[in-house]
Amino acid sequence: MTVRAAIRGAMDLPVVGMVGGGQLSRMTHQAAIALGLSLRVLADASHDSAALVASNVVVGSHTSEQDLLDFAEGCEVVTFDHEHVPGDLIRAMEERGHTVLPSSAALLHAQDKLVMRQRLRELGVPVPPFAAVSTAADLDAFATEHGWPVVLKAATGGYDGKGVWIVDSAADAATVLASGVRLLVEQKVPLLRELAAVVARSPYGQAAAWPVVETVQADGICVEVVAPAPGLSDDLAVEAQGLALRLADALGVVGVLAVELFETAEGLLVNELAMRPHNSGHWTIEGARTSQFEQHLRAVLDYPLGTTTLTAPVVVMANLLGGEGDPELDKRLHLLFAHDPALKVHLYGKEVRPGRKIGHVTALGDDLDETGARARAGAHYLRTGQWLTP
Amino acid sequence: MTVRAAIRGAMDLPVVGMVGGGQLSRMTHQAAIALGLSLRVLADASHDSAALVASNVVVGSHTSEQDLLDFAEGCEVVTFDHEHVPGDLIRAMEERGHTVLPSSAALLHAQDKLVMRQRLRELGVPVPPFAAVSTAADLDAFATEHGWPVVLKAATGGYDGKGVWIVDSAADAATVLASGVRLLVEQKVPLLRELAAVVARSPYGQAAAWPVVETVQADGICVEVVAPAPGLSDDLAVEAQGLALRLADALGVVGVLAVELFETAEGLLVNELAMRPHNSGHWTIEGARTSQFEQHLRAVLDYPLGTTTLTAPVVVMANLLGGEGDPELDKRLHLLFAHDPALKVHLYGKEVRPGRKIGHVTALGDDLDETGARARAGAHYLRTGQWLTP
Repeated sequence: MTVRAAIRGAMDLPVVGMVGGGQLSRMTHQAAIALGLSLRVLADASHDSAALVASNVVVGSHTSEQDLLDFAEGCEVVTFDHEHVPGDLIRAMEERGHTVLPSSAALLHAQDKLVMRQRLRELGVPVPPFAAVSTAADLDAFATEHGWPVVLKAATGGYDGKGVWIVDSAADAATVLASGVRLLVEQKVPLLRELAAVVARSPYGQAAAWPVVETVQADGICVEVVAPAPGLSDDLAVEAQGLALRLADALGVVGVLAVELFETAEGLLVNELAMRPHNSGHWTIEGARTSQFEQHLRAVLDYPLGTTTLTAPVVVMANLLGGEGDPELDKRLHLLFAHDPALKVHLYGKEVRPGRKIGHVTALGDDLDETGARARAGAHYLRTGQWLTP
Repeated sequence: MTVRAAIRGAMDLPVVGMVGGGQLSRMTHQAAIALGLSLRVLADASHDSAALVASNVVVGSHTSEQDLLDFAEGCEVVTFDHEHVPGDLIRAMEERGHTVLPSSAALLHAQDKLVMRQRLRELGVPVPPFAAVSTAADLDAFATEHGWPVVLKAATGGYDGKGVWIVDSAADAATVLASGVRLLVEQKVPLLRELAAVVARSPYGQAAAWPVVETVQADGICVEVVAPAPGLSDDLAVEAQGLALRLADALGVVGVLAVELFETAEGLLVNELAMRPHNSGHWTIEGARTSQFEQHLRAVLDYPLGTTTLTAPVVVMANLLGGEGDPELDKRLHLLFAHDPALKVHLYGKEVRPGRKIGHVTALGDDLDETGARARAGAHYLRTGQWLTP
């Protein structure tokens, strides 16, 4: 096949196609280069983050069956940098004989929170109390049992805090309830902090886990990840990793699986699942012997997985969110590199908009406070042009 | 300018152009991605190693003035992945107002061994005894003083052992002498081993050195690099780094400078210079906090340089050379990854030809023998499909 031969290049290694041209695709391409590969990217536009750096870019829509089928042609495997491809279109690729990993059946649990919650409950995995809701009466009934406020969530389509509402009464939720969106409600769990257990699993069934991390959110967006999670007991760490590995197996996940967890006084609860490289794993680029991006590629290609050990006692990643006004990134990079020559900066090439994830900063060190302060200071300076005062 | 705006992308960061589409360009592109950049590559062909993975590829000739001038248009800075661009063409870019780093004046010392030897002697830097030669009588006169065999070298154009001849007599050298190639002759120095001191220097004058490494050659090709150089005395390590930093400054190098050294019973001698990321620095991708590829970009963009500390006590890189027959790389990768999940493999996407550098393998560890054995075993297995017997 012409396309296949042309894409495969001189070494005749497999072609991996990734649907989505965001930063996850961009960083997966970076990892692909070392493996002798060149990611094939389906991007919405030629200025998408990954499209700016990859040679093999197809501009098309992830909601067009024809675009997806054309894209999959000649790929050894198709995978994803987001969860927004409709399940029936993924199944269309599968029915055409393409290898799609994670499969539509697995991915459904990262696309539909209601399906995920129900399945996890069946599997005996601890989740917050929840219910499907469509009326004010449903909501009142749930709150009578679990108390206000409650967390109302769109079953599909939400991310980075979008599609999640904290409501104090049914009246508060009137607009959302009237919108026709499929909804579930959850107890607003009193949590100590959020954790993430990131693992990878190959079709062969091999699996590997990175150390459990603490994730810090602000306004529903992850702003910081600390590896390993400070002060986490061995028992809880093993429980979290075991839970993620068990879920990867039970749901048939291939690739990276990120399990977002609530740590509560009563133990761990699963919050969300993502079946792709995830923000809570960006620290692995420098912080682990095998990054989540390389591991995702190894997993979907059914290569044996790489070592997940840390390269430093403490690794802290701070997200760089877009600020207001002219970012003067080039000038700020100069000053930041002068200030901290050991900081690792990742910029995604995205247009700067307030609150948008446009990069991240990773610090490695021996001391938790010092390493965290360096990462936070770096991200804050790139965003604002101001140094954090200690 | 349209080109510039299109290339710069949404973040408005600078465009770096690299002349040459080989593996150095490929790995520099990989490092550029993290910095929010996308390398602009001038490649001989669309299947060149870097052209397979970069989005911004211009196919053209590095010996065509017009191609070079067109390529440089819109680049913030032009740099190189090899030394084969004729000096007058580099000067043509400079005269057109383009920033070219390293400059033609500096790069000449990595292009012309005779100029380099003469300049280093003027600077008081220790080099092997040498002389320009063009006749059998010249050669005899040199050998009378320094003894046979001698090392005959083409002043320009050689690499990886090409353009270097060990000769036992003037008769031995008759063909080369008759070829009209500009030649120099050197004493065949009795050496203990080869070392390399790799440093980087920015236009601002900031410089940074990685630990001195030992390089192992076979048939004139580097096959293994050990960082840091085992058993090297602190005095010699400091001397080697100091010598490289002093040369970078004296020659006005901007970017990475690799100084290949002979360790002899009488001390260090400079063998060759390279002003670009170099095979003796590939280990820095995983083995140092800042890789030589990121550092080269930081240097030519005049960003402050990154930390060069090691990420493990011992780092060994083994080059992967093309073997005979069908390499079955994909299958071998599976088996190698199963055998050693901590090995880092880099494949360059190049067509496999016997003896050609097609990738490298890096092992990190605590023990010199064990780490070296792992790297060697990995490269040998990928090349031959056979495990080295201990």
